[in-house]
Amino acid sequence: MRVHVQSFQADPAGLFTREQWNGVFGQSSGHDVSFGCTSDDLRAIESEVEVLLIATRGLRAMLPINAPKLKIVSVSSAGVDMLAPFDWLPSGAVLLNNSGTHSVKASEFALMGLLMLANRMPQFIAAQSLGQWQPVSVRTLANNRLTVVGLGAIGARCAEVASALGMHVTGVRSRPGTHPACVEVVGVDQIDRVLSYSDYLVLSLPGGATTRHLLDRRRLELLPHGASIVNVGRGSVLDEDALCDLLDSGKVGGAVLDVFEYEPLLKDSRLWRTPNLVVTPHVSADDPLNYNLLTLRILFDNLAAFSKGLPMPNQIDTTTGLRQSK
Amino acid sequence: MRVHVQSFQADPAGLFTREQWNGVFGQSSGHDVSFGCTSDDLRAIESEVEVLLIATRGLRAMLPINAPKLKIVSVSSAGVDMLAPFDWLPSGAVLLNNSGTHSVKASEFALMGLLMLANRMPQFIAAQSLGQWQPVSVRTLANNRLTVVGLGAIGARCAEVASALGMHVTGVRSRPGTHPACVEVVGVDQIDRVLSYSDYLVLSLPGGATTRHLLDRRRLELLPHGASIVNVGRGSVLDEDALCDLLDSGKVGGAVLDVFEYEPLLKDSRLWRTPNLVVTPHVSADDPLNYNLLTLRILFDNLAAFSKGLPMPNQIDTTTGLRQSK
Repeated sequence: MRVHVQSFQADPAGLFTREQWNGVFGQSSGHDVSFGCTSDDLRAIESEVEVLLIATRGLRAMLPINAPKLKIVSVSSAGVDMLAPFDWLPSGAVLLNNSGTHSVKASEFALMGLLMLANRMPQFIAAQSLGQWQPVSVRTLANNRLTVVGLGAIGARCAEVASALGMHVTGVRSRPGTHPACVEVVGVDQIDRVLSYSDYLVLSLPGGATTRHLLDRRRLELLPHGASIVNVGRGSVLDEDALCDLLDSGKVGGAVLDVFEYEPLLKDSRLWRTPNLVVTPHVSADDPLNYNLLTLRILFDNLAAFSKGLPMPNQIDTTTGLRQSK
Repeated sequence: MRVHVQSFQADPAGLFTREQWNGVFGQSSGHDVSFGCTSDDLRAIESEVEVLLIATRGLRAMLPINAPKLKIVSVSSAGVDMLAPFDWLPSGAVLLNNSGTHSVKASEFALMGLLMLANRMPQFIAAQSLGQWQPVSVRTLANNRLTVVGLGAIGARCAEVASALGMHVTGVRSRPGTHPACVEVVGVDQIDRVLSYSDYLVLSLPGGATTRHLLDRRRLELLPHGASIVNVGRGSVLDEDALCDLLDSGKVGGAVLDVFEYEPLLKDSRLWRTPNLVVTPHVSADDPLNYNLLTLRILFDNLAAFSKGLPMPNQIDTTTGLRQSK
């Protein structure tokens, strides 16, 4: 097929290269592939391109596009809300997201957050800053209950690594079902029930109107006393002010937040100073060392499915903006 | 057999109970078991006891003991140096350590340390204390090289969890061999070679003269620039002053230390304030919630082996003070 790979960033160190392509697709992939990074590069191949790999923001800036032969558009992000409505897609063309590129990195971060909270690291960090040796008893994750809210690529990988450490994992997703790493997978309508027995909570949900403040004050108060929370999805999912109140009172035992409703956090935000709260500056998901290769591998898997007439794993349902296979 | 279980601590919440015993051995174990916590409790059964479970320090305080029927002494610690020399053991009796009770807890801590260093948490912790949003690129553990020095129960479990996350693990132990979670297992004589390609280092060695300053300044300087170190074994294994110098210069990228040559750390120790160093107060291994049950399970496994005439997995070689099967 006629493939065009438009680099996601202008930084020369981050450009897609033919070596990376060959490393994933092999020297003779059967595809005719070009590489570009400017809008002129893209306009030059618009009339002939069949498969386009492009940054989500870069594509939005180029819309509408006039690509009559386009069959597949693969974008750099997992969330595609910024491209909706999808009436710009040529008739018969499908949209793929990049779900999967962040899962190893973000699940490692989430596991770190869980381990830091089990090991009461916020207390030890505070004691170290004062030069104080203050041992307190700490817990294992093994045999504790974790609920992962959002079982996309990141949430599913979180469930797998936590389960491998011996946690009992419940999954919450829009479409209930089963998952091999989860004891149970429930729909969002069941979230109140499962929160009441969740020692640990990992949030790995996309943003947007349907998830905004899903964890509001009432739901946060359903958690067992001393429960711990890690958020690697979107900050808007959580009522941050309610969380700070519950951390202040000790009702919530600790939290590690990498994402916030408004980023960057302002210097006077109470989040910086709330006890037992670890703040990181939205670094959990990006894996620049591996991003291009992971992206090309996802495109490879999808083109392989396409060539066999199988459903493409990253295909977006343009009526919902979510992955069809999710 | 005639078994006596002497509780490890005076705290009533931590006493061994018949319910715990029955939970592990079953209601009708075939053993005649008593429980105690004072020295009088022990002296009262000395003449008849065949199997004694006791805290290492508690036993040392009672030596010599006059227990002519004693066949098996199981102590609470992994290291038994404080009981050497072992000439107090009645002829024909064997000594078991408690290796295995700490492995889940301590390996979770070590994994946390590795994840915190990959995610540059020391920098983010410092930035949070200043209310500064300073994203920097962070790494995955997956596909990186880890060397675990000391493949006892804790080190072996570290190797397993790190391998499950996609790390390439090298093991260093006194007796080389193979381990399913390790790409290679080498003897201590090979440590210089493997240090030169270790992105991450976990130290899980016992203390004592043979391991003191095994990681001295020369060896620490063999690590690749920016390597990371986690110590969950004994503090004496590491030259702390050399490590602080190498952290100050940036040659070592970060370290998480839970154990120190002299504990507790003094208030004016430079370790509290060295950059990219996380200090915790010797909390990585103890798992008080699960300690009694884990201890009884280890005794169960050893008595089961004994009754079949098989080698007991926790039997100490009294000429070396190390586990025979290790």
